[in-house]
Amino acid sequence: MEWTRSKRYLPYNKWDAEYLLKLQAQTAASAYRPSYHIAPTSGLLNDPNGFSFFNGQWHLFYQSFPFGPVHGLKSWVHLVSTDLVHWQNLGTALKPSTQFDSHGVYSGSASVIGDKLFLMYTGNVRDSDWIRSPYQNGAWLNQNNQLTKLEKPLITQPQHTTDHFRDPQLLQKDDKYYALIGAQDAATQSGQIAVFSSTNLHDWKDLGYLNFAQKSLGYMIECPNLVFVAQQPVLIFCPQGLDPEIAAYQNIYPNMYLIGSNCNLEKGEFTPAAPLSQLDYGFDVYASQAFTAPDGQSYLISWLGLPEIEYPTDSENWAHCLTQVKQLSLENGQLYQQPVPAIRALRQQPQPLTGRTAASETILTSAPGKHYELELTFSADQTGTLYLFRDIQKKHGLKIDFSSGENASLTVDRSQAGLAFAQKYGTTRRVPLEAHQKLVLDVFVDYSVCEIFINNGQRVLSMRVFPTKDETAITLAGQAQITYNGSWWNLTKTNS
Amino acid sequence: MEWTRSKRYLPYNKWDAEYLLKLQAQTAASAYRPSYHIAPTSGLLNDPNGFSFFNGQWHLFYQSFPFGPVHGLKSWVHLVSTDLVHWQNLGTALKPSTQFDSHGVYSGSASVIGDKLFLMYTGNVRDSDWIRSPYQNGAWLNQNNQLTKLEKPLITQPQHTTDHFRDPQLLQKDDKYYALIGAQDAATQSGQIAVFSSTNLHDWKDLGYLNFAQKSLGYMIECPNLVFVAQQPVLIFCPQGLDPEIAAYQNIYPNMYLIGSNCNLEKGEFTPAAPLSQLDYGFDVYASQAFTAPDGQSYLISWLGLPEIEYPTDSENWAHCLTQVKQLSLENGQLYQQPVPAIRALRQQPQPLTGRTAASETILTSAPGKHYELELTFSADQTGTLYLFRDIQKKHGLKIDFSSGENASLTVDRSQAGLAFAQKYGTTRRVPLEAHQKLVLDVFVDYSVCEIFINNGQRVLSMRVFPTKDETAITLAGQAQITYNGSWWNLTKTNS
Repeated sequence: MEWTRSKRYLPYNKWDAEYLLKLQAQTAASAYRPSYHIAPTSGLLNDPNGFSFFNGQWHLFYQSFPFGPVHGLKSWVHLVSTDLVHWQNLGTALKPSTQFDSHGVYSGSASVIGDKLFLMYTGNVRDSDWIRSPYQNGAWLNQNNQLTKLEKPLITQPQHTTDHFRDPQLLQKDDKYYALIGAQDAATQSGQIAVFSSTNLHDWKDLGYLNFAQKSLGYMIECPNLVFVAQQPVLIFCPQGLDPEIAAYQNIYPNMYLIGSNCNLEKGEFTPAAPLSQLDYGFDVYASQAFTAPDGQSYLISWLGLPEIEYPTDSENWAHCLTQVKQLSLENGQLYQQPVPAIRALRQQPQPLTGRTAASETILTSAPGKHYELELTFSADQTGTLYLFRDIQKKHGLKIDFSSGENASLTVDRSQAGLAFAQKYGTTRRVPLEAHQKLVLDVFVDYSVCEIFINNGQRVLSMRVFPTKDETAITLAGQAQITYNGSWWNLTKTNS
Repeated sequence: MEWTRSKRYLPYNKWDAEYLLKLQAQTAASAYRPSYHIAPTSGLLNDPNGFSFFNGQWHLFYQSFPFGPVHGLKSWVHLVSTDLVHWQNLGTALKPSTQFDSHGVYSGSASVIGDKLFLMYTGNVRDSDWIRSPYQNGAWLNQNNQLTKLEKPLITQPQHTTDHFRDPQLLQKDDKYYALIGAQDAATQSGQIAVFSSTNLHDWKDLGYLNFAQKSLGYMIECPNLVFVAQQPVLIFCPQGLDPEIAAYQNIYPNMYLIGSNCNLEKGEFTPAAPLSQLDYGFDVYASQAFTAPDGQSYLISWLGLPEIEYPTDSENWAHCLTQVKQLSLENGQLYQQPVPAIRALRQQPQPLTGRTAASETILTSAPGKHYELELTFSADQTGTLYLFRDIQKKHGLKIDFSSGENASLTVDRSQAGLAFAQKYGTTRRVPLEAHQKLVLDVFVDYSVCEIFINNGQRVLSMRVFPTKDETAITLAGQAQITYNGSWWNLTKTNS
């Protein structure tokens, strides 16, 4: 299908149901469909939205274009969970339906207000000349999961931004509502985070831009997300066009974060306590959303996909998935991301992996299945290569070079792993580690997803990999013998 | 919506996708949607089809009309499983697409032939005068779950039947293929099971009707299903218009079975070894399908719904679900139906229930949740009432009167349980039991499903119940004190 503009923006009721059923069946049957990560039932998934805890359940939405693997007329699909691992897909929730969201219900957030959940989202509107007007809109979700959109926008585009003005994060602080909105400054064409405040949810005051960076961070900032991790402010955002000299990255657009020593939204101030850092060292994390739940913990979820890149499942008419939910913590001034406790319950029988490699590449297991967790600990001062998705001929696989010695680091090379894609943005990702420390890897594989947690979540690398049929094994190799200690587990599918 | 004939038979590509997405969301959000039973993603589900083991997985299909809670243009939805409990829905598989199935892909079966799965199904065809022509068609499913329909029907309607000629069961026996087909005799308008044989799958020989009953069994027999349980033939079928004098039943149509001492399909003979019996003593079982798997065990699954009856979820635009899969065995000349072992793995923490009732109605647990298993053992010679879905006011609930004494029996009364429906066919079901024996109940509740296994599967009562919000508790009452011993467990959702 040729994805013309008119195809992408065709109203949902102009698509035929047989086509949708066919797409849903094709998606369900895909050999790359994850089994315990949230994936679309058809078409394209992008940003997580409205991540929240309400009415005794976790709520999450995702950006959806159900009719193909492209960005088109977007809506929100709604999911609920009781454990952040098993998600029930409640289907399409917020759809374009008004003059303030006619060309897409774009990203946004959610916050519990009274006995309802308030959703704040960007309504994308185009006029007949395709001139864009972004509106920041509101909608109420009641306890029966029924949605009511507000009749009027909450915030319209201010004069000081371009039409790149989207992704509102609604926050409640000191008896006020605040909205952080991704923006492009009209005068300088630089990426900014616009701040608005309100006392009643309806009248919003423009507080200007958040003052949080000394330098320009590119031409646009998407998905600003302020979260308080154990009371300390952490600002997560996606700067587009960021100079890699400011903070290194290789992905087309990075998902960055700043730990703050102080944050005063009323004054529009966020004081960084540490340099700008990559949230995830892998190939595919973007548009992350985090919030602090009533249990006091802060949770994060990300789009496992990037804009403007073709992925192998495009040929199957669907694209992308979300990462697993991660729990955030701060240790020694660093942001840690750990799997949530409930994901441990997916573990089936443990398969111990303890030993010492032979002189040549050692097969740890030849067929761990397509959805497993692998935990491996290496003592300090070892150097080796762990392969996932390895074939018997030892030609293909995801190559993970590690060293726990002087120049400790971990480098993932996906150039020989399954179907090739996104090579333009490099096929390796490297993360430096602390020298002479033991190395603990907690790896989650789910068909076409691979998430590597290093040293208890100090670093994370998340990525898509599309292995061929023969790429199944886990092997370990090194110039010297390597001692290893760990286990792997098949993980139960959750069919989210 | 008024379900005119033209609406029911509208081609799938004339329905709009927005409507389908809305229906899917409405279905997913239903408070009555089961969590570990197979239910439709939208619209109406009826007969299980093509239940089989192929390519290392269990396969199952169900009759689907995705656009509303009515019988319309039917297709097959495909599911696969590795444990008969967790099912992955692969979406719509067989759809009307040829001149031999233009008005519905109706029920049928599946059998592994070579390295493929062969599906045999009834193609429903109507001409412009709405005259029906049923065709028995074939299709191949390959190891990638791709379907290819045969170009020509396998069997056309013989002169000796009316157009009620459907639901083929394909069997392989003694190097031949056999098809048992539900039929109505043209001359006598009586229900029959037509038998055909083939040596090559393409040329079929009409062997006439199966000789298995002395008396007329009504005007039509649907869903004939021959299964060999530990080598002994068991014939399962749905006689419509059966005289209750021949075998008692109250449902609009019963699902009956006969245990045979001998079965010779070539001669068209099935010799009953026991009287005609109800497969399930509950309110809602129909169109059951059973087969003997490569593991030597015979498995059964049923539609938990009946034709021509309105169910409460019709107002939510979806209807029906399937029973859990049951394992068949023969003991002392009786057919036993037991839960499959894997369903035990859904059990969460056991909640022990042991004691003696007080003088008045005793609450065993006030809030077991909406998806649980309850196992209770009563010693011989006790009489009492177990209530499920009981409200605090003790006015409503599913009333289960039991006696393990002289006139041992169990009677379910759903007249006061949740939303009323199908009252025309009676609100109680009674099953006689052996006198002076202990009574073991294994009860599965799943939102709007209740399945009661009595004495290790000697008798089963399966039913739909649509409790209101306040109907949650499990209580026990009796004129005398009752001692009981057992447990209940929350069951993990499988999101099938």
